Amino acid sequence: MTIQDSGTARPAGRPRSEKAEKAIIDATLDLIGEGMGVSELSIEAIASRAGVGKTTIYRRWSNKEDLVVDALSTLKAPLPPLSGISVRDDLISLLDAMRKEAGQARTRCVMNIALGEADRYPRLMERFVKRAVEPRRQALRSVIERGVANGELRSDLDVDLAMALFSGAMMWHTKWGPPGDLPLDLAERVVDTVLLGLAGERATS
Amino acid sequence: MTIQDSGTARPAGRPRSEKAEKAIIDATLDLIGEGMGVSELSIEAIASRAGVGKTTIYRRWSNKEDLVVDALSTLKAPLPPLSGISVRDDLISLLDAMRKEAGQARTRCVMNIALGEADRYPRLMERFVKRAVEPRRQALRSVIERGVANGELRSDLDVDLAMALFSGAMMWHTKWGPPGDLPLDLAERVVDTVLLGLAGERATS
Repeated sequence: MTIQDSGTARPAGRPRSEKAEKAIIDATLDLIGEGMGVSELSIEAIASRAGVGKTTIYRRWSNKEDLVVDALSTLKAPLPPLSGISVRDDLISLLDAMRKEAGQARTRCVMNIALGEADRYPRLMERFVKRAVEPRRQALRSVIERGVANGELRSDLDVDLAMALFSGAMMWHTKWGPPGDLPLDLAERVVDTVLLGLAGERATS
Repeated sequence: MTIQDSGTARPAGRPRSEKAEKAIIDATLDLIGEGMGVSELSIEAIASRAGVGKTTIYRRWSNKEDLVVDALSTLKAPLPPLSGISVRDDLISLLDAMRKEAGQARTRCVMNIALGEADRYPRLMERFVKRAVEPRRQALRSVIERGVANGELRSDLDVDLAMALFSGAMMWHTKWGPPGDLPLDLAERVVDTVLLGLAGERATS
């Protein structure tokens, strides 16, 4: 399907505009997912794949970097609703949202490629982190801090380290785990294992 | 320093050969570290940077992929000696080796770029994993299994999940932690936190 990029007036602008926007975002993600790095990506290639004119793209995004930040941000699942009752349950909800988004092959592929370019595009990654990563991180931090405050978690807990344990375990599975979907019960197992600890009866600590 | 690539006999082959090899490996890592992806890397560019002729490279590596696998493998620190006495101490030694190698800016940068290309170069990553990642993973698994067997760790522990927790926490700090060296006590804090668990007094599990 080709969306014409004419300069004429738009009688029903919004729907057509959204359709074009979606086609452009999809084209961007498809090209990255096929192995095209951000450096190789061109507005021409995106326009051609999306079936729109370059003008249509430039009307919404003034440069490639802005478009890539927007495209990557759409891969992030919305924050799940949190019960606010059990810290354990809220942690599982947050980690399960990570599991779901990481389970999609395209997401994994695109994120691997994009993150691999983080050093080459620091500003791009910085903006992506601010837009898409920080809100999730903040949600995780709030739940952990709630647990420390109400006694569900240890009062002497290093909150940053706790965040690294939860996120790192999910990240590890995305990166190094067997290919394909992550196990359905992964979030629950990670949370319960981290809460309980690994020490056995003979532990001396 | 330029190493000549003449076709003449080598009177003291070994030292000169090792010197050239090091220059070639360094040039490869430098170029990747400067942001050149594996796809953009050429034997020409490596030869030019290393100050050797292409023949010198092809005498040792039949293709670019072989050379990149070798170059990436040199970034891995050797496995640390393990006391074999305390599982906690051995875990800290293993994680501290990860901390040391991750702390080097060049290593972080090169690994980010190379891992970002994992989807484009599955065979390259597979070989790198087999050569450089698997031995470390096996060492970590052995220590955890020893802990399960001797009671330092819980008898019902999911060994794979435990590995993901330890490695994931270190990986998270490398990827998302503040730039610069990782904290000197990171390995110890990760191990002790994971062993003890996060649950507080009010925990219901």
